[in-house]
Amino acid sequence: MVVLGVDPGIATVGFGVIDAAGGSQRLLRCGVITTSPDMRLARRLKQIYSDIQEIIGAFNPDCMVIEELFFNTNLKTAVSVAHGRGVVILAGETRGVPMYEYTPLQVKQAVTGYGRAEKKQVMDMVRRLLSMDATPKPDDAADALAVAICHARFAGSLINIVEDSGCSTI
Amino acid sequence: MVVLGVDPGIATVGFGVIDAAGGSQRLLRCGVITTSPDMRLARRLKQIYSDIQEIIGAFNPDCMVIEELFFNTNLKTAVSVAHGRGVVILAGETRGVPMYEYTPLQVKQAVTGYGRAEKKQVMDMVRRLLSMDATPKPDDAADALAVAICHARFAGSLINIVEDSGCSTI
Repeated sequence: MVVLGVDPGIATVGFGVIDAAGGSQRLLRCGVITTSPDMRLARRLKQIYSDIQEIIGAFNPDCMVIEELFFNTNLKTAVSVAHGRGVVILAGETRGVPMYEYTPLQVKQAVTGYGRAEKKQVMDMVRRLLSMDATPKPDDAADALAVAICHARFAGSLINIVEDSGCSTI
Repeated sequence: MVVLGVDPGIATVGFGVIDAAGGSQRLLRCGVITTSPDMRLARRLKQIYSDIQEIIGAFNPDCMVIEELFFNTNLKTAVSVAHGRGVVILAGETRGVPMYEYTPLQVKQAVTGYGRAEKKQVMDMVRRLLSMDATPKPDDAADALAVAICHARFAGSLINIVEDSGCSTI
């Protein structure tokens, strides 16, 4: 099962593609889409939309996974990220990719076994689970891999991921 | 000049199309796009995106205008609206329509002459300026017309609307 994880934003959108089978996960690709603050918002959104579609076209993922938005962040940041999140979701829907979302707590739980794990622990587990030499950089790419791993682990251990894992379809 | 005003959201997206010439504005069409809470978020976003594109296709507007998001609303609402706003802007960009945004204060100022006008006054001026028998319903449609009128008035009275009116390109 190929899983595409996405960490949405405007300036930086992280993505991570893994192949999950038999309880283990293999890295296919990770990276970031970046857009310049010099660009108009509309142009940035269009680039994010196109690039996500291109990634979907290149890897043909079985599903796309996005973390739920924090609601304890500041309003201006949340609104900016939500603009980007909207077009990321639209790109997945346009391509007919099933989408799921998890809370930050679920992601930490799935990756480290502990819902209140530190960010560093999550990053380190991502590196180890995917047999990488170093923690993926920037953090947005690693965050995207973490949410992909989260889904792979829930999906691998449960018959009905949506009903039983507490994740939501988008 | 045909101006499309949009009042973004998820459940209800207001739109208003006017023809502005020689300091007066004529109503071409207004209404709302509605999506059901029973639909997945992704499906709702895709419908909004498609419908905005269809409206652009039908009226071929010279520009699209959207109000800036309030930052004093609650975070959950703002994030939800911002998802919708992202795909509305993407739809305009995909169609190559120039886009502008105004603050709520600028819209009230342009429509009623007073930046702190009550909502009812704005609605009433929209009705009068467009020679309508009744205030457009629901409010989202009237709000979309107000932002379209705002742009028409700035654009009609100033040589360089972007530089001089304080509005921003999106």
